[in-house]
Amino acid sequence: MKETEKIEIMNFDQEGYLEDGKALYETGKLVTAMADRVADEGYDAVFLMGVGGTWDELMQLEYLMNKFGDKDLEVYLIHAAEWNVMGHKRMTEKSVVLTASESGTTPEVLEACKKMKEMGVRVFAMTKPEGPIGQVVGAENCVAMASDHGSGGCEKGYYLADCFGLRLLNRRGCFPKFDLFIEQTKDIWKYMLDIRKRFEPKAEELARKYALAPYTMFIGSGALWGETILYSMCILEEMQWKRTRSITSHDFFHGTLELLEPGVPVFLYKGEDECRALDNRVEAFLRSGVTGDEDYVIIDTAEYAIPGLDDDFRVIVSPWILTVLATDRMARHYETVTKHNLKYRRYYHQFDY
Amino acid sequence: MKETEKIEIMNFDQEGYLEDGKALYETGKLVTAMADRVADEGYDAVFLMGVGGTWDELMQLEYLMNKFGDKDLEVYLIHAAEWNVMGHKRMTEKSVVLTASESGTTPEVLEACKKMKEMGVRVFAMTKPEGPIGQVVGAENCVAMASDHGSGGCEKGYYLADCFGLRLLNRRGCFPKFDLFIEQTKDIWKYMLDIRKRFEPKAEELARKYALAPYTMFIGSGALWGETILYSMCILEEMQWKRTRSITSHDFFHGTLELLEPGVPVFLYKGEDECRALDNRVEAFLRSGVTGDEDYVIIDTAEYAIPGLDDDFRVIVSPWILTVLATDRMARHYETVTKHNLKYRRYYHQFDY
Repeated sequence: MKETEKIEIMNFDQEGYLEDGKALYETGKLVTAMADRVADEGYDAVFLMGVGGTWDELMQLEYLMNKFGDKDLEVYLIHAAEWNVMGHKRMTEKSVVLTASESGTTPEVLEACKKMKEMGVRVFAMTKPEGPIGQVVGAENCVAMASDHGSGGCEKGYYLADCFGLRLLNRRGCFPKFDLFIEQTKDIWKYMLDIRKRFEPKAEELARKYALAPYTMFIGSGALWGETILYSMCILEEMQWKRTRSITSHDFFHGTLELLEPGVPVFLYKGEDECRALDNRVEAFLRSGVTGDEDYVIIDTAEYAIPGLDDDFRVIVSPWILTVLATDRMARHYETVTKHNLKYRRYYHQFDY
Repeated sequence: MKETEKIEIMNFDQEGYLEDGKALYETGKLVTAMADRVADEGYDAVFLMGVGGTWDELMQLEYLMNKFGDKDLEVYLIHAAEWNVMGHKRMTEKSVVLTASESGTTPEVLEACKKMKEMGVRVFAMTKPEGPIGQVVGAENCVAMASDHGSGGCEKGYYLADCFGLRLLNRRGCFPKFDLFIEQTKDIWKYMLDIRKRFEPKAEELARKYALAPYTMFIGSGALWGETILYSMCILEEMQWKRTRSITSHDFFHGTLELLEPGVPVFLYKGEDECRALDNRVEAFLRSGVTGDEDYVIIDTAEYAIPGLDDDFRVIVSPWILTVLATDRMARHYETVTKHNLKYRRYYHQFDY
């Protein structure tokens, strides 16, 4: 494949990325072993807990576990701050929680983990074992995110979370091809590099056209919805201070469509699951020309091949692909155009609240 | 109370509203009887189904049923368009669905109702019996929304939905004070008029200050979150073509806060449930002055008394109060300032999609 040749990806360490990918395969085994422990011990419900970006990231796993899971599997996506005040009526000492915190210090997650441990709930975290959250959940329940070189996107976090959730499914007889999936994604990182290379000129073009727009709309659904919010909120709002609106493909038609007019950029993220039918409806509307808005961008994960991957695994990796395109590549190019460093914050981590 | 005196409420038929309120009490009895039928026959799960505004409206009932319900009660809020492509693994022929459609024609809801009836699922609808959805679910499973004179807000829809859901709870032993609640809210409509009168000058002032703003943020949580989205999306986006951002009090701190700067209007809707602690955190941040943004508006439902209502019912009526303030009064005054008729649509119901 021509694209695997040495082509530059802006602000991106290709060798480091592949090295991290190798390490991730090993980390994935640790996470799988954690899921095995849970499956051996038994559990009544699975809680995926985050705040902001981690909440968004875990949404794809909630989707997948409901999609592939049996009728009796209970999976709940919870927001740590909300759980801290409300609790959850289905959480018992037999429940299991998966959470994540890159900094290891997220206050709401830390508070929740402490309370959960007191309740006797098993908590697993994708976080550095030496951080405050890592210390609460214990090193044996904890894996570092393993992105020493930084990928920009969330695909490696998705991979680890999926190892946990899909393994639990597998142990219930719901995702029999788990081992095959792990095998087929072992070297996926080089294809993720190819996808970056292929998208690089497009990312640059989109950033030039839209990074300075005062307001941008993002539409997604199904397995991609979490990543759609994440890019819109955690990248553009938080890191670029851009006004955005994210809306599901299904609810778009019940209000938000009225905002479309010439000059308003709209990104539609098309996925590879049942909800694609809803994405198609939005696409047809955008293409119909009735809005007069020609600034629509269709990003379809199906256009990005992963050689050697079974078709029924596409839905799982579709958010990995989108995060590579949006949260990694588009973000880097937006940063270049806006000259607004992705690390700047006005308020977050600057003040107590 | 001085406020019950004859004070003008702009574009509002006070006598008609009270008449509708009387009729609603009777309609509520029909809905309660439907819930009784369901309770007598038994059910495995309750699905609350809508799209856009009706999805938002039913969110408060999902919240209440989870709050007051026992551990084994299953309640799911589903979006009709999404259900049409995905289904739901917990729906069986023993399930029960509550939906709503003011027009009676909402295509996604109509499609879903047809499929559900074929599956043998019991479907109840707040819609006119003679409309297409009414005909599918059958007159015996259907009540008209009973707002002949139009209230502007959604409080009467909330009332009817709550009659259904709270009665189901009551029959499970979870909401023992159901009859008292119905009794204490029998004449609530006159207090809802008082609230309107009291808020009228404020609504006018807020509209003058903010109706022409290019972008406005709305923050809410708990029982108020559905109404927060509804006002932001269905009123301001759909009916006023205004750019808005609605965000929960808990997730606000994980990205969206960075958008605050002098001149950006922010509305915080404070509720009366556990999540008020999260609202308070936002309020403290807004008041701290770190953003330099002085255009924040705190609307607190707790400031609006309902004489004779037990304290533990406040959480139930808090969205009714907010809808009176926002979706009714603020919307009317925005309309006056923007000179943009709330009935105008660019695309919705204008084109097939």
